[in-house]
Amino acid sequence: MRWTIGFDGDDTLWHNETLFSMTQERFRALLAEEVSPDDLDARLLDTERRNLEIFGYGIKGFVLSMIETAVEVSAERVPASDIRRILDFGKEMLRHPVELLDGVAETIEALSGRHDLLLITKGDLFDQESKIARSGLAEHFRGIEIVSEKDPETYRRVLARHGVGPERFVMVGNSVRSDILPVLALGARAVHVPYHVTWAHEQADPPAEGYLRAASLADLPDLLAAL
Amino acid sequence: MRWTIGFDGDDTLWHNETLFSMTQERFRALLAEEVSPDDLDARLLDTERRNLEIFGYGIKGFVLSMIETAVEVSAERVPASDIRRILDFGKEMLRHPVELLDGVAETIEALSGRHDLLLITKGDLFDQESKIARSGLAEHFRGIEIVSEKDPETYRRVLARHGVGPERFVMVGNSVRSDILPVLALGARAVHVPYHVTWAHEQADPPAEGYLRAASLADLPDLLAAL
Repeated sequence: MRWTIGFDGDDTLWHNETLFSMTQERFRALLAEEVSPDDLDARLLDTERRNLEIFGYGIKGFVLSMIETAVEVSAERVPASDIRRILDFGKEMLRHPVELLDGVAETIEALSGRHDLLLITKGDLFDQESKIARSGLAEHFRGIEIVSEKDPETYRRVLARHGVGPERFVMVGNSVRSDILPVLALGARAVHVPYHVTWAHEQADPPAEGYLRAASLADLPDLLAAL
Repeated sequence: MRWTIGFDGDDTLWHNETLFSMTQERFRALLAEEVSPDDLDARLLDTERRNLEIFGYGIKGFVLSMIETAVEVSAERVPASDIRRILDFGKEMLRHPVELLDGVAETIEALSGRHDLLLITKGDLFDQESKIARSGLAEHFRGIEIVSEKDPETYRRVLARHGVGPERFVMVGNSVRSDILPVLALGARAVHVPYHVTWAHEQADPPAEGYLRAASLADLPDLLAAL
């Protein structure tokens, strides 16, 4: 059977959350004299969640939330040199090379001959486009959809736009909340490929059944053959 | 004739640049003791241009560039309370109500019955989606395209996606650089509706001919009838 396979980008095709984690580690070191690492993490997550409805997802919003958190935890005493460092963290993230996960390039290339592939990724339009271009994978996808939120309505719109029924669609991604649950809600299939780090905001309790799980994207061709 | 009409969003359908101008005015006042208004404007534009290739367009990148400029012009002496103020400027911009230009609601509604309307807007995905939703105009458009850059290739892709030939396409917008020139390059038509403020980066020398000009969107139905 020829499937339409949707792939998430961040932490499914290329590393992303490790970049955030590394940056957050540097942020902790920068403010170590002001606040303990655990407290800072909690304050930053609070700030990010509060800002999500106006900033959306992505690096620029993350940087703005780090700056806001630094101002707050320091009671407005953080020096401008630290603010400059945080701005630099952000620029380094935005310029960071795109690193594909193991086996991704081969698997995507192999699957693109037998199935229709869509890239369905959430986040900042400009940054995602830049990452897709730098990934070297763009030519293998029939369509690329950069969306601001991954809910059932978003997937419904994407499938309609590409003329695909849910019975022929499989979504592959690392986030149960964004890549699995909304797709199951449409009656389509989903394959969870966990990444070793998950942003606290993305964590959702996995339902007991209804979707497949793969340790690596390289297992996908066998999984599909067995569907 | 039934046209497919593409509309720009910012400063064509709703006010946008005035919001940036107002914020920049507050930014000048905040740093008035450090630097003259003209110098600050020049430094900020430099910073924005330098950052454009990693930030793209939009309010979040503008806020990050204001913070960077404040750190630089103060030689790292800007107090954290000023940084907080700049963050607040950004949040106010993101939450600001969407204000349609005069005559837009009526014109869009009237045209949507006789032509196919597309909204083709550049900028931050999340912020643009939010503005479109709040504009109350979304239902009148056959398609909504949020793009990171408006060049001939972008327009070619949008037209292909909607199955529209350039001979049936008219683009309407306030930016000669983004809405007019790349569309003329495809052999389609364009109507320039100037806005009273243009961001320095968007200014382009208008070519002498090849496109129409309207003082207001309300003139569009008559212009189209005469095409």
